[in-house]
Amino acid sequence: MSALFDKHRETLDRAVREIRTRGYWSAYPEMPSGRLYGESAKADGETAFKALLNREFPLDQPAEGAPVGRESSPYGFDLAITYPVAPAERLIGAAKTAGAVWAHAPVAVRIGILLEALDRLNRASFLMANAVMNTTGQSFIMAFQAGGPHAQDRGLEAVAYAFEAMEAIPRAVRWEKPQGKNPPLILDKTFRIVPRGVGLVIGCATFPTWNSYAAIFADLATGNSVIVKPHPMAILPLALTVKTLREVIAEEGYDPNTVLLAADDPDQPVTLDYLTSEDVDLVDFTGSAAFGAVVRSHAHGRPVFTEEAGVNPVVITGTDDFRGLTGNIAMSLSLYSGQMCTAPQAIFVPADGIETDAGHKSPDDVAKGIATALDKILGDHDRAMAILGAVQNPATLDRVKTAEKSGRLVRASTPVEGETDARTATPAIVALDAADEAWREECFGPIGFVVTAPDAHEAIRLAAGSVAEKGAITASFYGLDEGLIDAAIDAFGRVGAPLSVNLTGQLLVNQSAAFSDFHVSGLNPAGTATLTDAAFVANRFSVAAVRRPVAA
Amino acid sequence: MSALFDKHRETLDRAVREIRTRGYWSAYPEMPSGRLYGESAKADGETAFKALLNREFPLDQPAEGAPVGRESSPYGFDLAITYPVAPAERLIGAAKTAGAVWAHAPVAVRIGILLEALDRLNRASFLMANAVMNTTGQSFIMAFQAGGPHAQDRGLEAVAYAFEAMEAIPRAVRWEKPQGKNPPLILDKTFRIVPRGVGLVIGCATFPTWNSYAAIFADLATGNSVIVKPHPMAILPLALTVKTLREVIAEEGYDPNTVLLAADDPDQPVTLDYLTSEDVDLVDFTGSAAFGAVVRSHAHGRPVFTEEAGVNPVVITGTDDFRGLTGNIAMSLSLYSGQMCTAPQAIFVPADGIETDAGHKSPDDVAKGIATALDKILGDHDRAMAILGAVQNPATLDRVKTAEKSGRLVRASTPVEGETDARTATPAIVALDAADEAWREECFGPIGFVVTAPDAHEAIRLAAGSVAEKGAITASFYGLDEGLIDAAIDAFGRVGAPLSVNLTGQLLVNQSAAFSDFHVSGLNPAGTATLTDAAFVANRFSVAAVRRPVAA
Repeated sequence: MSALFDKHRETLDRAVREIRTRGYWSAYPEMPSGRLYGESAKADGETAFKALLNREFPLDQPAEGAPVGRESSPYGFDLAITYPVAPAERLIGAAKTAGAVWAHAPVAVRIGILLEALDRLNRASFLMANAVMNTTGQSFIMAFQAGGPHAQDRGLEAVAYAFEAMEAIPRAVRWEKPQGKNPPLILDKTFRIVPRGVGLVIGCATFPTWNSYAAIFADLATGNSVIVKPHPMAILPLALTVKTLREVIAEEGYDPNTVLLAADDPDQPVTLDYLTSEDVDLVDFTGSAAFGAVVRSHAHGRPVFTEEAGVNPVVITGTDDFRGLTGNIAMSLSLYSGQMCTAPQAIFVPADGIETDAGHKSPDDVAKGIATALDKILGDHDRAMAILGAVQNPATLDRVKTAEKSGRLVRASTPVEGETDARTATPAIVALDAADEAWREECFGPIGFVVTAPDAHEAIRLAAGSVAEKGAITASFYGLDEGLIDAAIDAFGRVGAPLSVNLTGQLLVNQSAAFSDFHVSGLNPAGTATLTDAAFVANRFSVAAVRRPVAA
Repeated sequence: MSALFDKHRETLDRAVREIRTRGYWSAYPEMPSGRLYGESAKADGETAFKALLNREFPLDQPAEGAPVGRESSPYGFDLAITYPVAPAERLIGAAKTAGAVWAHAPVAVRIGILLEALDRLNRASFLMANAVMNTTGQSFIMAFQAGGPHAQDRGLEAVAYAFEAMEAIPRAVRWEKPQGKNPPLILDKTFRIVPRGVGLVIGCATFPTWNSYAAIFADLATGNSVIVKPHPMAILPLALTVKTLREVIAEEGYDPNTVLLAADDPDQPVTLDYLTSEDVDLVDFTGSAAFGAVVRSHAHGRPVFTEEAGVNPVVITGTDDFRGLTGNIAMSLSLYSGQMCTAPQAIFVPADGIETDAGHKSPDDVAKGIATALDKILGDHDRAMAILGAVQNPATLDRVKTAEKSGRLVRASTPVEGETDARTATPAIVALDAADEAWREECFGPIGFVVTAPDAHEAIRLAAGSVAEKGAITASFYGLDEGLIDAAIDAFGRVGAPLSVNLTGQLLVNQSAAFSDFHVSGLNPAGTATLTDAAFVANRFSVAAVRRPVAA
């Protein structure tokens, strides 16, 4: 067996149990606490991050030509880190060579290496937090949690599914077919797990680790080699990941080119060089629907797993906690400045208004209530920064300004008062009618549309229709009428949008927990794959069978 | 629960156990015996088949316009059966409507209905044998086995995988996240299986049921509705299947349009009308690589499962049973006149020849040995017909004639002596050099190329290379040197061709047994999917989640 497998066996066994029950579980502590991570961990992480700035990233992989790298922190400074590059065909060749050996590594060896890498990544969570914060613009606490332990949980979850899927294949069997009075026909059969080959994992700029770890770890667990193509503005988190994986793989005697980084600059993108290669055997992508269409059009029978984008709806038909409702929605809109793929966008309210514990509320009352809640939770600079973080892409600011003009502006987006370094924007609230167009298109960033719908049923219909047409990763419903709740459950279920009902407290629709929530359904345009389920891993490998006759 | 589920529960439980162990098992008896199927079953099946000829097939589904149907038996008569048709959008609309209800049928209800349909199809195996025989040209015994019980086994296997995959999803769970000294955060979550929607299953002309049942039953089990698009020359077997499924579905109170037949004529194909529809949500295809490329190019993120074509190689490096070897290969080439997707095509022999129990054999000796074995097993008319059956497509005869001219003709293809009705052809044997081109392309039909390779290792390399380039569904190796066997296992494993070693008796490389053999690996151009494994079912459904907070 494998020493690393034995070392982490308990974690693996627990993870395999948890994917069957999908209750609450996390392998890696989400609190950035010195007690859990070591008293010097926070300072060490910051020091390690600063030591990486303004130099070439130490990644010992095939390189050719001038290194690249233009990452710029949304908190107001350039990282000035460069990364080695090489032509796609060279990296693909190296991945194929390494993969031929990795494919033959026993499953337990591969799994042991991956669990060890996750463990090391976990211990480096403070460094990762700095890297994620200063590429994506997330607040420190979110960068720590989503970029560190929560991403590691998603990686472990994928390892658990992959392990279970491979364990379901018997390795050897005697096939014995009775022949009546004659001796049976007998074959000895062996089944070996064979990976597809070279996996390409294309990362995004907002959650570079959280959205990539499931794919990277699923590919590697099932024996594929992996080329990690980060977003050009969020390379560092995945470079750190690739470096850690390469180190453990090399220590265990395998070719570190089993995992490679394919960095690029924004104005010289290389992704198509990989997508068009016949030697890339499976593709995972997180990003825009526009580029998602390009990725899908290059499938040609390869497995392609995408998370694209969507218009996550909220339908409000009533509540017994209006303050909780407006506060919860305000927080969902604010968290990471609406740059989460799970953040709500269009909030539907019946034209006649809704009944609440605070009296009857018209659509305008609801919009104003959310605006008031926003003002309240974002009033203090430090608290606002901890919730909003910074805006990853300057284009998002322009998009918000345009959106503000698309209807009646209830609350304008503003920078965070007193913030001088970071690129910030509080959520805008815009009131629209159902007949308006603006809410129908994805509008990525801190913007909420409050849409007046003819009635509650029509609100559900409009919301579910927008999911079918444009995709959604979450949906949210408020109401006390169980008939309406059932209608919402059915409507959003059909179009594959996970539904949260009556969230008025700390829990936000944005949150997707590893080992419990299935992230993306594949049933609407928001993506083709779920993080993580059996379908996410089952097609990353196949079986090589050998049959030999045995004399009866 | 469901009465039908309870009725067939034992069969299901056994099937679920068997997919885990993959030893020998069959739910439906393969012997066309009166003792098993009823003494009058054979005569009844023939009578029922004849009653279907020369009229419109009794299928009560949405219809519009003149019925179609040009099936012609390779045994020398026209079936003159017509089938109802309707525009694609109308059938797709009917499938969507029916599917919306089917999706909500409890899993046990769907599974019960499918197991009952399989049971009824099994009891109709003699009728099915006549239908398959007189569309595909298979001999009666093969049409009975492959078209009946073996296809039913593949359907049951798919139901078992689907059931297991759905059972792995908990239906409800309480998620309880500790909050230190504060009360925990609690969510009640439900998970409902949601199908993708409308499945399209495109059948082939040679194994219309065996190659379609896994897809049809996997789609239906996971809650999708299905449009079955048969090959225009092999409609009847799938029309009978659709009819049976519709009957059971209607009896249980569901909309029979959950399963629909989309028949067409060869000169007015309709498949593209379905492939280009955005309302078709997943596609299964069996057929040529050329049309497979069309199917794959229309994926756009939909799951697409294909079985296309390949150049199944045989590598001979030695044997201790030369007579068994030549006899076995001769039988593999002859069975259904080489029209099996699993039949060998190129037989590689080292230039220096091989050592055998019958002395040293040159490549020419091997070719002649196979030719002699062919003459022997095909010498008697009735025995020849039972093995060869008839040739499904007249174009196959032309292809064999062309192939005969591509090298040194060792044995010419001939019609079966004394046969006056059926379109028949015995296998041709053509000797080629490794540098020749003819063996590299798929040559569907009764043809074997004996290819002289520089040496044993080069033979393996050439054979595995041809698999990587053109695809293969089987590979075969003969030799006593365990080092060479290991080299073959590794080489064919890498390219995903299941390998049979030293078959010299009754067992043929062509045979692929449900519940044991994984058919098609998805790792080479012969197809993207395996019949049947977890990957074949896992992506046909997703999960609709609902989260509701619970006060702690």
